[in-house]
Amino acid sequence: MEKEGRKEIIKWNFIGKKEDININKNNEENKKKSNNSKSYTIREARTMIMENINPNDKRQMLALAHGDPSIFSCFRTCRNAEDAVVEALRSGNFNSYATSTGLLTARKAVAEYLSQDLPYTVSANGVYLTNGCTGAIDVALSMLARPGANILLPKPGYPYYEIRSEYIGLETRHFDLLPENGWEVDLQSLEAQADSNTVAMVLINPGNPCGNVFTYKHLQKVAEVARRLGIMVISDEVYGELTFGNNPFVPMAVFESAVPVITLGSLSKRWIVPGWRLGWLVTHDTHCILLNSGIIERIEHIVSKASDPVTFLQAALPKILKWTSEDFFTKITNILQHDANICYEKLQEIPVITCPYKPDGSMFMMVKLNVCLLEDVEDDMDFCIKLANEENMIILPGVTVGLKNWLRVTFALEPAALEEGLERMKAFCQRHSKNHIKCY
Amino acid sequence: MEKEGRKEIIKWNFIGKKEDININKNNEENKKKSNNSKSYTIREARTMIMENINPNDKRQMLALAHGDPSIFSCFRTCRNAEDAVVEALRSGNFNSYATSTGLLTARKAVAEYLSQDLPYTVSANGVYLTNGCTGAIDVALSMLARPGANILLPKPGYPYYEIRSEYIGLETRHFDLLPENGWEVDLQSLEAQADSNTVAMVLINPGNPCGNVFTYKHLQKVAEVARRLGIMVISDEVYGELTFGNNPFVPMAVFESAVPVITLGSLSKRWIVPGWRLGWLVTHDTHCILLNSGIIERIEHIVSKASDPVTFLQAALPKILKWTSEDFFTKITNILQHDANICYEKLQEIPVITCPYKPDGSMFMMVKLNVCLLEDVEDDMDFCIKLANEENMIILPGVTVGLKNWLRVTFALEPAALEEGLERMKAFCQRHSKNHIKCY
Repeated sequence: MEKEGRKEIIKWNFIGKKEDININKNNEENKKKSNNSKSYTIREARTMIMENINPNDKRQMLALAHGDPSIFSCFRTCRNAEDAVVEALRSGNFNSYATSTGLLTARKAVAEYLSQDLPYTVSANGVYLTNGCTGAIDVALSMLARPGANILLPKPGYPYYEIRSEYIGLETRHFDLLPENGWEVDLQSLEAQADSNTVAMVLINPGNPCGNVFTYKHLQKVAEVARRLGIMVISDEVYGELTFGNNPFVPMAVFESAVPVITLGSLSKRWIVPGWRLGWLVTHDTHCILLNSGIIERIEHIVSKASDPVTFLQAALPKILKWTSEDFFTKITNILQHDANICYEKLQEIPVITCPYKPDGSMFMMVKLNVCLLEDVEDDMDFCIKLANEENMIILPGVTVGLKNWLRVTFALEPAALEEGLERMKAFCQRHSKNHIKCY
Repeated sequence: MEKEGRKEIIKWNFIGKKEDININKNNEENKKKSNNSKSYTIREARTMIMENINPNDKRQMLALAHGDPSIFSCFRTCRNAEDAVVEALRSGNFNSYATSTGLLTARKAVAEYLSQDLPYTVSANGVYLTNGCTGAIDVALSMLARPGANILLPKPGYPYYEIRSEYIGLETRHFDLLPENGWEVDLQSLEAQADSNTVAMVLINPGNPCGNVFTYKHLQKVAEVARRLGIMVISDEVYGELTFGNNPFVPMAVFESAVPVITLGSLSKRWIVPGWRLGWLVTHDTHCILLNSGIIERIEHIVSKASDPVTFLQAALPKILKWTSEDFFTKITNILQHDANICYEKLQEIPVITCPYKPDGSMFMMVKLNVCLLEDVEDDMDFCIKLANEENMIILPGVTVGLKNWLRVTFALEPAALEEGLERMKAFCQRHSKNHIKCY
């Protein structure tokens, strides 16, 4: 008994050992270590990079690092979509909870919307409304998690798949996308990764981070391999229809009679409203394989416990999907095409950067950083940190999306801002090039 | 090789053993079995009951089973709140992703809103915006989950806590609320359940499902016990301010200097907009106990992976919280008070039902069903199923909230609809009473 101990000392039970409290974090960190190279989530990387921004740099901070151009007025969503939301809100009829699968009118509208591009009619029963495409990814991965199961993910890819899989205990394996083949799937590497515990593969089309758009022919080959491996295809089409190159967008569900397909999508990208959090997961299951395997039951079990999208946004969805004019879509893809051209051309002027492929879609491209040509840049992360510090701009190191010493560059900006950003990048590279290699 | 085998047979890997696919479901079912009595989630119970509705009954279907009166025009949310949402949407400035903790202006507004009732000023840094109060519950439970930890939940309570805890592997234990003491916490049962692995207790105030409102004095005693046990208090105040009896609403955070408090809340109930999915989790941590124990870091880690509320709704939050007139709040509590009176009086007229307590707040009351006085009713679930079938109305069996052979009755309806529902319930009980006990 201490004499001075007048102050009561409480032992708070929730103050556990650090290891206990940070279970999931540690899991992730262990996984990282086992890959034998330092890796970062996009958010961690962005935070590290942002911390190196020079507050005394009075130029506009330029972010070429994320798929959300909504702050630029040229990317403002269409008036009709806003009108539909206001109408649903003002009706006062949609302030209540929705059902767990979503409002039937909204599910029907998504089914009709997707059916436009398909040789068959999607059933509204196969549509589940989710909190953005992220919510759809959560449901897709959760429905597959079981002891020993693994999933095949593209490399480079979208790291939320890895983060979420680790969180729920689903093993991840990676197949390559080939820059020299327009970022097509390396089918050999796909087959090599699979075994009898492989339950699904993920395809992101149009590509994040590569900006490619898969051809009908290539998707057909992927479907054949998936069928042979006995796995379903989860087709992340959140950038669906955002194409402006030679390859038109082909939804994976075209091949649903060969292989069960789950399509993920949302309003976020095509309508430039990621903050509206309205996405969908759609099952394509003509042969009732997903139904008979219990996957459908599992999806319904999961969505019954998941948070629903805002009800008045669900109610607005039919009009948003129907009222949006082709002019709006054309305007957006024209800007993206113009942006992609600027980005590709400007980056080609920088000798330390190699651009294997000019984007056909989405909002990103992957370019290779030739670190050996740089004087004082260690790797892609170091490049991005120094670029942030010296040029008040952010791009994403490739290590976050699976390719070390590459860079993911977002071109979806107001074109003048994009040009300015690329000029800064060029100046930075010029200053840091060995022997002052000149940019041509 | 089969001769007729022209049709290729694919072995789909994702068709696993049923046990594997339904891991989480089975966990839940095992838990249920171990309780030695059949239990149901609210949703399961509601589905079972709904299936017994007679489609030939042409009367209006009356739901006295959930805390969402937004379909009734008298419960329409206030125009100012709608205006704030429309303004934020029409500005075009809030279509983008928000930060994971929420927009700073919205966090500040919640801090100010809660500070009005507290003797100290809540910090905006302690406010995390979530997908409704459900999202806040998810974060609160996830931050506590670690091997061996347990949490104390009220019985009767809100079963989402049990469902979510089981899902993430947090052990649940129950303390009693005492009907004979106005549903106060049985402090002895609270102490008896706790051990050194108990990390937190949950209090729902105003009460769901009991309709009680805890007094300052009782909350103080709870805080003292929690402090002695070394556990934090998670105070679910989603029905905060919805009081109309003798006890005014006292936020648990009043006692935050004695014990760390986490407040959960949302717009859903007070503004009658559960479909807007905008809630908050707020830490009250004057002595930096949550900070130093790593709990704050853990919350930030969890919200960085969770889905954010819709950005334009976050942006509208400051105006919603400030613009809503006292007249609106008064109108709503007046209706609820009127409803509670009707409900209490009408149910007292039914001999097979005992009403231990007249509600002071929230939208519910718990009443005891004296099954032995009924001729052909097995238990509370059977009562609700037969009531649905014969009277085209839904109430919730107590078994779903932890008390078998009780009923949870929602009184938050347009008063005429409530009266009609209670009349039907009375007629049903009269028909099914032994020896045709007459209602007086």
